[in-house]
Amino acid sequence: MKVSIIGATGYAGAELLRILYGHPQAEVVHITSESHTEEPISAIYPHLDGIYDLKLESMKDIVNIGKDSDFVFIGLPHGHAMAVGKALEGLPVRIIDLGADYRFSDTSIYETWYKVPHTHKNAKRVYGLAELCRDKIRNAKIIGNAGCYTTASILALAPLAKEHLIDVNTIIVDAKSGTSGAGRGIKQQTHFPDMYDSFAAYNVAHHRHTPEIEQAVSALSGEKCTLNFTPHLVPMSRGILATCYASLKPGVHADDVDEAYNNLYMNEHFIRLRGRGAYPETKWVRGSNFCDIGWHIDERTGRVIALSAIDNLVKGAAGQAVQNFNIACGFDEKTGLDFAPIYP
Amino acid sequence: MKVSIIGATGYAGAELLRILYGHPQAEVVHITSESHTEEPISAIYPHLDGIYDLKLESMKDIVNIGKDSDFVFIGLPHGHAMAVGKALEGLPVRIIDLGADYRFSDTSIYETWYKVPHTHKNAKRVYGLAELCRDKIRNAKIIGNAGCYTTASILALAPLAKEHLIDVNTIIVDAKSGTSGAGRGIKQQTHFPDMYDSFAAYNVAHHRHTPEIEQAVSALSGEKCTLNFTPHLVPMSRGILATCYASLKPGVHADDVDEAYNNLYMNEHFIRLRGRGAYPETKWVRGSNFCDIGWHIDERTGRVIALSAIDNLVKGAAGQAVQNFNIACGFDEKTGLDFAPIYP
Amino acid sequence: MKVSIIGATGYAGAELLRILYGHPQAEVVHITSESHTEEPISAIYPHLDGIYDLKLESMKDIVNIGKDSDFVFIGLPHGHAMAVGKALEGLPVRIIDLGADYRFSDTSIYETWYKVPHTHKNAKRVYGLAELCRDKIRNAKIIGNAGCYTTASILALAPLAKEHLIDVNTIIVDAKSGTSGAGRGIKQQTHFPDMYDSFAAYNVAHHRHTPEIEQAVSALSGEKCTLNFTPHLVPMSRGILATCYASLKPGVHADDVDEAYNNLYMNEHFIRLRGRGAYPETKWVRGSNFCDIGWHIDERTGRVIALSAIDNLVKGAAGQAVQNFNIACGFDEKTGLDFAPIYP
Amino acid sequence: MKVSIIGATGYAGAELLRILYGHPQAEVVHITSESHTEEPISAIYPHLDGIYDLKLESMKDIVNIGKDSDFVFIGLPHGHAMAVGKALEGLPVRIIDLGADYRFSDTSIYETWYKVPHTHKNAKRVYGLAELCRDKIRNAKIIGNAGCYTTASILALAPLAKEHLIDVNTIIVDAKSGTSGAGRGIKQQTHFPDMYDSFAAYNVAHHRHTPEIEQAVSALSGEKCTLNFTPHLVPMSRGILATCYASLKPGVHADDVDEAYNNLYMNEHFIRLRGRGAYPETKWVRGSNFCDIGWHIDERTGRVIALSAIDNLVKGAAGQAVQNFNIACGFDEKTGLDFAPIYP
Repeated sequence: MKVSIIGATGYAGAELLRILYGHPQAEVVHITSESHTEEPISAIYPHLDGIYDLKLESMKDIVNIGKDSDFVFIGLPHGHAMAVGKALEGLPVRIIDLGADYRFSDTSIYETWYKVPHTHKNAKRVYGLAELCRDKIRNAKIIGNAGCYTTASILALAPLAKEHLIDVNTIIVDAKSGTSGAGRGIKQQTHFPDMYDSFAAYNVAHHRHTPEIEQAVSALSGEKCTLNFTPHLVPMSRGILATCYASLKPGVHADDVDEAYNNLYMNEHFIRLRGRGAYPETKWVRGSNFCDIGWHIDERTGRVIALSAIDNLVKGAAGQAVQNFNIACGFDEKTGLDFAPIYP
Repeated sequence: MKVSIIGATGYAGAELLRILYGHPQAEVVHITSESHTEEPISAIYPHLDGIYDLKLESMKDIVNIGKDSDFVFIGLPHGHAMAVGKALEGLPVRIIDLGADYRFSDTSIYETWYKVPHTHKNAKRVYGLAELCRDKIRNAKIIGNAGCYTTASILALAPLAKEHLIDVNTIIVDAKSGTSGAGRGIKQQTHFPDMYDSFAAYNVAHHRHTPEIEQAVSALSGEKCTLNFTPHLVPMSRGILATCYASLKPGVHADDVDEAYNNLYMNEHFIRLRGRGAYPETKWVRGSNFCDIGWHIDERTGRVIALSAIDNLVKGAAGQAVQNFNIACGFDEKTGLDFAPIYP
Repeated sequence: MKVSIIGATGYAGAELLRILYGHPQAEVVHITSESHTEEPISAIYPHLDGIYDLKLESMKDIVNIGKDSDFVFIGLPHGHAMAVGKALEGLPVRIIDLGADYRFSDTSIYETWYKVPHTHKNAKRVYGLAELCRDKIRNAKIIGNAGCYTTASILALAPLAKEHLIDVNTIIVDAKSGTSGAGRGIKQQTHFPDMYDSFAAYNVAHHRHTPEIEQAVSALSGEKCTLNFTPHLVPMSRGILATCYASLKPGVHADDVDEAYNNLYMNEHFIRLRGRGAYPETKWVRGSNFCDIGWHIDERTGRVIALSAIDNLVKGAAGQAVQNFNIACGFDEKTGLDFAPIYP
Repeated sequence: MKVSIIGATGYAGAELLRILYGHPQAEVVHITSESHTEEPISAIYPHLDGIYDLKLESMKDIVNIGKDSDFVFIGLPHGHAMAVGKALEGLPVRIIDLGADYRFSDTSIYETWYKVPHTHKNAKRVYGLAELCRDKIRNAKIIGNAGCYTTASILALAPLAKEHLIDVNTIIVDAKSGTSGAGRGIKQQTHFPDMYDSFAAYNVAHHRHTPEIEQAVSALSGEKCTLNFTPHLVPMSRGILATCYASLKPGVHADDVDEAYNNLYMNEHFIRLRGRGAYPETKWVRGSNFCDIGWHIDERTGRVIALSAIDNLVKGAAGQAVQNFNIACGFDEKTGLDFAPIYP
């Protein structure tokens, strides 16, 4: 399959290149960047020297890029993928957007949280969380790849929501991400001496991944869910840990919880159930497409605490995009993703 | 005042030495360590070379150390301070225990969570969280210095509990600590390559700081409180951030919350209210006795999210101990603690 | 090819497992550990869960392991590989030792620096630095895989020594390694709070990689070389940067230096010449088998400063071992190693 | 003494504020910033909230600031202090410049390396490395505070140069600095994910601290010295380690080296000689004005390797400035600097 990456110089784009290099069925044919047009990718990302000879192009000629590609991955800031989606509408090329533009079935939620008008409301799109949306992904024209925090959060909560074990309005997700999640753009906050040896929350009560988690939990449980999501930046590069709290419904036992996790995920290669009482750590999934999950029951408070760890750039972005690509192409889902995490 | 430190070679002991060096009213006369007896403190802690000439002694002769001291600080693992407290019972020396032995008014709670019998149940003791227990600390014989996570958590929750603004049984504290909080003893988990670039929770639903927070919230609110407390280790050295969630009672407005924080802390030098919508960061308190607090109201879910940042070794241990010492001695509370955080 | 790993629970062993998982021609059949016998490898290294189902065995039955293997990789502390080498002497199995036992042609140098007797002096062994010793590696029975610091240092110095451009007795190698280089065993020095946010040298003038670099430079230049090698630990996990100084011989020009690098390495896939004036960074090689090299000429002092960056666990250990394995098997050298570095 | 800080929002300025807060003889009266005029310092540096109430002013009215101050500290980029120095020429106010403008006795060297014309050549200035230039500092009008790398390097080399124990043209200084040394301005290179977990050299053979070290070594030894200086950035916040190599002159023994260090520094409070064979670590000096020194003799190569560790923002900048201020005022040198390093 011929694939192109629109917006290849962000961290997710670079990670797509890293992963696709090992994918036996994919050939990267075009990569774009408006600020580095004509430069070889290895000039911006020296780690790709000897790996890729490609030069960055402008996306101005998106239609021809689309004609020349079987799949287009989009790594643009939110609000910019819709124009690409519309431009490629009549072509056979299929799209995997790593941003938020195609993640919401109700575009008014997108408009409220992202503060931009949705200009492609009738797009044929599916939500791209591979383990939960596999069937719809298979034939999708446009896949709205799930976000990083949301992937970790939804995978941790899904069995509980699906089996109606929790009161979905008691959900609190306290999430922590490595700094690569804040992107490649330089800011005072992510200047090394400002970020190193410090820890803080941000966007409390209004982070844009909140409605995405709510959408998924509501769909799984069949009940409208409103929840709290709190992100924090950790002084490390990669990795997300989501600590998810919810009150168990009366009469729910620990065994029910165990069963729900096992039932939903027992055949999922990329989900490693660590079990009840276990502590996933981001180091064990670093660089890989795995999501490790553990859960705990607090009898004193009647709450379940579910923990999930992913690599935000892999299962939380580029790896999941390739997994979705595999599903959409009918390949084995592990194709190009069957490698071990990198530790230490 | 002549002061001694029993168990001086842990991180809290070393930090006490650092702080007391700048205290104009305190002279350190004895420091003890059973494993480094007779060694100069600068052999274990080269940063104290040129600062202290003291040699470590055994605590076997605790009575004479007690006779020779106005105050004894105890930096021993839990379960070991009670013997010291009993040995010094008849002497005029006063005690500040940085461990947990004297923190609970109901010793059965201590026994349940710490799994050791309490052997000094009738000790005249007070809980040592300076801002909240000042009056009792003044004349106390034994001060059970508040724990690190608990100091951050209780200071964030106190105004809400005291003014009855929250349902205390909806409290969830999701806390994150720098690795110095795990102590100086070496373990695989805190081996550099295992800790660096990774993030995880531990002791979910059964960390021993849970009942200490519950005790304080119950006392402040007058209602029995059961809560969830989840600690995590951050790949950094110092600092705690506590993210505290609770449901607001019906009819409570954002202004009520603001007022509660301002009323309780307006005259507290070491508590810096960053205000509603603010994000405390551990870097702004590093090395200091400050506790920075911010809070957020989520109208969608009806919850308040309170954030507090401290240096776990200062306000969470040695600094608070010195603050309690100042109160107990009738000194200005800032004595020896009036220095700026160290940034970056 | 059936391969086994003797001493699989160190960092180099774990890294071998990570790399060999992606090697199409290798099947790992036995892994050993004396302290974790009978445990699944994923119990010690959870990142390998879902990757390997193997259990650790004792190496007591080394002969049968040898009979059952085409290649044995040894990841034992120095001094322990010789017994394995001797035990397998009569078998067709070939050996790649990641330790120092088989690195020296003059075993008295080994004995002087490593303070243990060499008990396998007549072993048919070759030095395992792939780019420089390829021809001998092809048919070797025992390959003494080059050390981590030494790989970085020798690759940086080789063109200069080989072309007689420098006075080999003016060489100073100032090297810096990530903490994984100090191994998985816990020590106070590598306890997270002790290692983090600190920097120091160690083993000045007597690190054991010194004679290994001298051996290689002497062989390349034909002159006996005595040099200074100074290692430092960097508060990061992976990566070595070697900063190598030497005085240029009279009349040597910058172009001669450029030419020497280009001549020696122009066809080497794993050596990426960044060129004169360039600054290799460990982040650009992280997780990969690449060695990035840059060099600088200081006209004022007449010195050349060569810089090389490798991942100490890959090109400095497991990756190089697999490269040597490929050479010894007649495979393409890139087999199983043709993946991109992981950044950020 | 009334002191002002011109350019107070860089890291060195912030560190000056931290230190001066604890100085019993100094009152900070003016602080300037052109980009943050009128803002309170705590808005930019929240760690100083509750510590300083000062607002930033413009330096446009430098003459009045000078009239209102006994001392002015300058924390501007190089090239900008000369205008301040000239503007204050006729006033009694004295100046400590933390930049490079007043460090060179031969201004042509400054012009060559810094690529700007020196516009204040006849300034009455002294070099501000306290331990070596104390007598001249006492009555100086303008003190050119020594640089960070240079302080570490010169203090390590001074005894060797002064006692003619080394060939000064064999000196190589391989130095490593925490990232705060690169300043507060944001750059891609110091973006957290780019800096973290990576190590590299920069400015090989042309870093501007080179001639400053040469000037000092030449003055001490009486011989013109040309040397190599190579800086590297370490993924940590504070601290410099300088690894200094030089060939011993024939007949020089280890005892001579020991004696040279002891003679020069035996009464220096801020220099802690760790002794021959010792390894200074940046963690033991963090946050303090100490410089820790160790040295090693390599009999095989005839070289001495001297190691020194400082906190780049304290002994390498603000702390040394305060030490110089104390000397210039006739105060005890330790005034305001007599605090312990912060560890861990």
